[in-house]
Amino acid sequence: MKPATERLRIGVVGLGRLGKRHAENLAYRVPGATLAAACSPLQDELAWARDALHQSLDAPRLYADYTELLADPHVDAVWLVTPSSLHAQQIVDALQAGKHVFCEKPLSLEIAECERVLAEAARYPHLQATIGFMRRFDPSYRDAFEKIAAGRIGLPFLVRSQTTDQNDNDGFFVRFAATSGGIFLDCTVHDIDVARWLLGKPRATRVFAAGTVALHDGLREFGDVDNGVAICEFEGGKLAMFYASRTQAHGNDTHSEIIGTAGALTVGRNPRANRVEIYDASGIRNECTPNFFDRFEDAFLHEARAFVASVQNGAGKGDAASSGATLADALEATRIGLALRQSLQSGEAVTL
Amino acid sequence: MKPATERLRIGVVGLGRLGKRHAENLAYRVPGATLAAACSPLQDELAWARDALHQSLDAPRLYADYTELLADPHVDAVWLVTPSSLHAQQIVDALQAGKHVFCEKPLSLEIAECERVLAEAARYPHLQATIGFMRRFDPSYRDAFEKIAAGRIGLPFLVRSQTTDQNDNDGFFVRFAATSGGIFLDCTVHDIDVARWLLGKPRATRVFAAGTVALHDGLREFGDVDNGVAICEFEGGKLAMFYASRTQAHGNDTHSEIIGTAGALTVGRNPRANRVEIYDASGIRNECTPNFFDRFEDAFLHEARAFVASVQNGAGKGDAASSGATLADALEATRIGLALRQSLQSGEAVTL
Amino acid sequence: MKPATERLRIGVVGLGRLGKRHAENLAYRVPGATLAAACSPLQDELAWARDALHQSLDAPRLYADYTELLADPHVDAVWLVTPSSLHAQQIVDALQAGKHVFCEKPLSLEIAECERVLAEAARYPHLQATIGFMRRFDPSYRDAFEKIAAGRIGLPFLVRSQTTDQNDNDGFFVRFAATSGGIFLDCTVHDIDVARWLLGKPRATRVFAAGTVALHDGLREFGDVDNGVAICEFEGGKLAMFYASRTQAHGNDTHSEIIGTAGALTVGRNPRANRVEIYDASGIRNECTPNFFDRFEDAFLHEARAFVASVQNGAGKGDAASSGATLADALEATRIGLALRQSLQSGEAVTL
Amino acid sequence: MKPATERLRIGVVGLGRLGKRHAENLAYRVPGATLAAACSPLQDELAWARDALHQSLDAPRLYADYTELLADPHVDAVWLVTPSSLHAQQIVDALQAGKHVFCEKPLSLEIAECERVLAEAARYPHLQATIGFMRRFDPSYRDAFEKIAAGRIGLPFLVRSQTTDQNDNDGFFVRFAATSGGIFLDCTVHDIDVARWLLGKPRATRVFAAGTVALHDGLREFGDVDNGVAICEFEGGKLAMFYASRTQAHGNDTHSEIIGTAGALTVGRNPRANRVEIYDASGIRNECTPNFFDRFEDAFLHEARAFVASVQNGAGKGDAASSGATLADALEATRIGLALRQSLQSGEAVTL
Repeated sequence: MKPATERLRIGVVGLGRLGKRHAENLAYRVPGATLAAACSPLQDELAWARDALHQSLDAPRLYADYTELLADPHVDAVWLVTPSSLHAQQIVDALQAGKHVFCEKPLSLEIAECERVLAEAARYPHLQATIGFMRRFDPSYRDAFEKIAAGRIGLPFLVRSQTTDQNDNDGFFVRFAATSGGIFLDCTVHDIDVARWLLGKPRATRVFAAGTVALHDGLREFGDVDNGVAICEFEGGKLAMFYASRTQAHGNDTHSEIIGTAGALTVGRNPRANRVEIYDASGIRNECTPNFFDRFEDAFLHEARAFVASVQNGAGKGDAASSGATLADALEATRIGLALRQSLQSGEAVTL
Repeated sequence: MKPATERLRIGVVGLGRLGKRHAENLAYRVPGATLAAACSPLQDELAWARDALHQSLDAPRLYADYTELLADPHVDAVWLVTPSSLHAQQIVDALQAGKHVFCEKPLSLEIAECERVLAEAARYPHLQATIGFMRRFDPSYRDAFEKIAAGRIGLPFLVRSQTTDQNDNDGFFVRFAATSGGIFLDCTVHDIDVARWLLGKPRATRVFAAGTVALHDGLREFGDVDNGVAICEFEGGKLAMFYASRTQAHGNDTHSEIIGTAGALTVGRNPRANRVEIYDASGIRNECTPNFFDRFEDAFLHEARAFVASVQNGAGKGDAASSGATLADALEATRIGLALRQSLQSGEAVTL
Repeated sequence: MKPATERLRIGVVGLGRLGKRHAENLAYRVPGATLAAACSPLQDELAWARDALHQSLDAPRLYADYTELLADPHVDAVWLVTPSSLHAQQIVDALQAGKHVFCEKPLSLEIAECERVLAEAARYPHLQATIGFMRRFDPSYRDAFEKIAAGRIGLPFLVRSQTTDQNDNDGFFVRFAATSGGIFLDCTVHDIDVARWLLGKPRATRVFAAGTVALHDGLREFGDVDNGVAICEFEGGKLAMFYASRTQAHGNDTHSEIIGTAGALTVGRNPRANRVEIYDASGIRNECTPNFFDRFEDAFLHEARAFVASVQNGAGKGDAASSGATLADALEATRIGLALRQSLQSGEAVTL
Repeated sequence: MKPATERLRIGVVGLGRLGKRHAENLAYRVPGATLAAACSPLQDELAWARDALHQSLDAPRLYADYTELLADPHVDAVWLVTPSSLHAQQIVDALQAGKHVFCEKPLSLEIAECERVLAEAARYPHLQATIGFMRRFDPSYRDAFEKIAAGRIGLPFLVRSQTTDQNDNDGFFVRFAATSGGIFLDCTVHDIDVARWLLGKPRATRVFAAGTVALHDGLREFGDVDNGVAICEFEGGKLAMFYASRTQAHGNDTHSEIIGTAGALTVGRNPRANRVEIYDASGIRNECTPNFFDRFEDAFLHEARAFVASVQNGAGKGDAASSGATLADALEATRIGLALRQSLQSGEAVTL
């Protein structure tokens, strides 16, 4: 391990629910890092940081303004947990300020924006820039990845993957629909990344999508749906099927299946909340993970550790196996997600 | 129950592997029926019938020729387990001879043929004509159907269903590819029927399909694939996703999932061979059903009992809930299956 | 198969719920047998037989009196589904009348009675006498037996087995407690037979049992309990643990586990009612088999077929692997069951 | 949270495999604590501490001698991960030095020793003394405890619990047999604590145990076995069944079941390694947790957090629900474990 003076000094930006989790991980649970700064425009979020993070090695410096954080010379990397529409410019700003960047997905909902960030990042090959597709760091997804790499299922050719949320009667995502990009860019983008990652990053060639509004009529005005299905064809005869839903009764059910020529793997097929089974008059059951937060608690931590280790072992190498999704991966996820949305709206297959 | 003199006298036609099973069920395990006749052009199949069926109430009369069986006045119904290409004409011949008809799927691979049979059947409203989609009689599928009917999952809107076979290195289905109609008409047709049945028989409006040859290159010359995926849109915002495969490592894995506004059901998600679990150095596992024969052993029996009960309770009523798939159901399954094949070959969505 | 004239002609005795099931199996589903006679002292049971069994090959002759049935020269075997207290004498009577005998468990609750039957049976080596421990014919238990025989778990040394019923608020078994012999002789006797069968029939050397009344205080006056646990030691360091319960919430949960030096097997660990899983706000669940009738429906049929095959292949061979539990097996089950009861009542280990 | 100056300053004693894990948790993952000191008589363990723990808030002071650590006035609590035979005296020494104590199980293998520690601890009511039965802090066991407390299974009356290890051909535990106390004191002691905890701490009244040597003949000279089974009766008609094994093929399989008058719960019935399922020619399987380290990784962390929170919220309250097993709990576990060993050796039930 690095001595304390060589720790990666990170500034977290955005302290909403997910930002708080990242901040706590970086403050207390990532040995090679220190949480040097935290930034939020909201006073109550900064107050939370003051209370919750002061036992870290360094009490983090607090900023209301992102520009000020970037000017802090004792910050080596920024950790962006901000609204999606800000991601692209904030990444560019960070790179220009000489900081490594971790940014929550998505990179951007616009391909041109994605490409602009990639072009800029190419100018800073010594800086790490990673987009947070945390599933790659979930221990079970990781185990599947390694089994595939070891040839355990032969040649993988089909991924089936889903992101489905427990129904939220309050319909937060309905109010969010104007800016979310729709169900495929908001949810399925994770499955797209999983599929590319597990299939060896083949190029997508054609997609088809369909959807329905099962419960939330408010989505119709945005051209969005609360349940969507899709097929994605890749070069070399590889395939993916996706399902996204906002309306599950039983919980957040994020699972994936990888089928190869000599076997198959599933990850999380039953989204068990824990190891308890309940026997009663209704049968035998397990409770389910209520949301992605609980499901991927470990993944967020492993993701942070991997980012730090990647930077310390030589920033900018872009080793996706160890450091997560690259900007190029994020661009591809957006490209495919946009094509799915286009197919949903046109009713026709879209060639990429 | 009916006295022996009122039993439904059935003649089975075709004594291949599946025909033999039907014959034994009809001979020994369907109380209201008697196996009155058996027909095959093959001497060894007739010899099998002579040996295996003689303990039934009536030793069945044996025919090498279908026409002779139809001329037997002591046969009330025919049970067709013959090559698919013969189905349509044999059904018409049976109806014209005044016999009830049970016929294995598919009705025909040609829509015009299907329609010709429906038109002919309309002239014999007192005769039962059923196509053998046996999943409707599997106790677990039946339980799911009843739970849906009881409102247990709210309004069902999405079916995911698959028919996947254990890989057969001999590639029987490759040799069979010229006449099978391709993977969607041969395998997915069952899932199409399941989807229509569980979703309340909505009209299909658009389909998209894709596929790949993972192992069996011999299929390419027939434009067929050994793994296919598809989406089917129905009126009213209902959806289905299908998967068919010839190349599974673990067994025949036929399962279905029905998602509604208040819950979901899966049928056969783990295709357990039985109730045994094995604990060894590789982990904890169950073996899987090797083929559809083992998986649907019970279903074939319940199917035969339901057909007989339906005829005895008033032939021709076409009550699908009790008597299985109607000719109209079979026509729809063929129509959707053909559209899937067309989409696979064109790469475009097909509107129905 | 045997020609009709060589069929085993069976007379069923006792037409309660289980007797009816045996009668229907023998009448319709066991090709080498014919149900030649049925006997019950109750007019409504005979009326049921008249209605329900007349479509069998022979409409069975009906008797109100067991003696008359034994005098019927056209009956080759009797099938006793009568009260336990009658079993021993009825078996002796049947053997003396020259009939093969199948008898539901238990042979007797008294060791002296068991021994008397064995002594009498020894005089008729050409007659088959089998006690109905149907689990041996359940396909999953059978699969486990065969895997063990094939060495798949090394040397088996520990069986854990349970017989637990869904709670019956009406407490039928409370009223039955005076004659049932108590929970170990009524329920655990099946687990004892399973343990002996799967462990290679070692001799039991010592037992200890304990129990509690969780819900049914009416059992106390009989010295019985509604939940009992036990350990049984066998020669050669083999062991068994048993659990019996009348008070389960989730259903009849009959399962067994066999642990060997190289692996383990479980049979029925989750007593799934069928292949359906239900996803709703309570989680993911399966319903459970409500009672032993549903759980062992197949086993009763296979048991009948095996008995008939065994007689036809040479009666009296006592081949337990194919024909079920011998009288000697049944004696051992009673002997161990009685020791468990004695241990429960004394609080001390009992040496056999 | 407490400011840094109010953190609980902990000294870990013993840096073997488990000690290292505790040290890392205390150094990096328990916000209210700081790892102030570490003690080991082994130079390589101290060297490890120097390397691995220096990034904690305080680089821990290193001691080769326990007495010196106790003399350190800047240590508030000791964390004992030392050989079992040292536990009792080290706890007494710590209390006399004014330190809170966490000690790995067992308290002692001698009842007199246990009682001596309890008597001494009674003199220091302001000091926390906890024995490390970590299962109480496993999230799934905790969930079960809470469901029981909420009445979800009615009145719990039977616990079945097991601790079984994957077979270790090297037979570490054989060499360890002279001092381990035997399988019941070494393994089952955890299940005893689980049973008492989940059943509401009833008093044990009688036990019976049996065992066998399935693979490791070297145990015979110590009167020990590699597979043991036991029954424990408690006052009020409560019961427990235990199984301990050193010879499992599939992994460490630690699971428990709690049966109540209105339902039951299982914890860890299938010891899944993670969320992956593997589909191949052998069936569908999951891999299993290889050892208790992997199984209880989270529990060790939660245990440390709970201890620290308990001390900070008012030391010495002995609130078992939040702070783990008390010395009295540990005494009871030893008392019952010793009775099991006595029963194993005598072949008779032992009354407590």
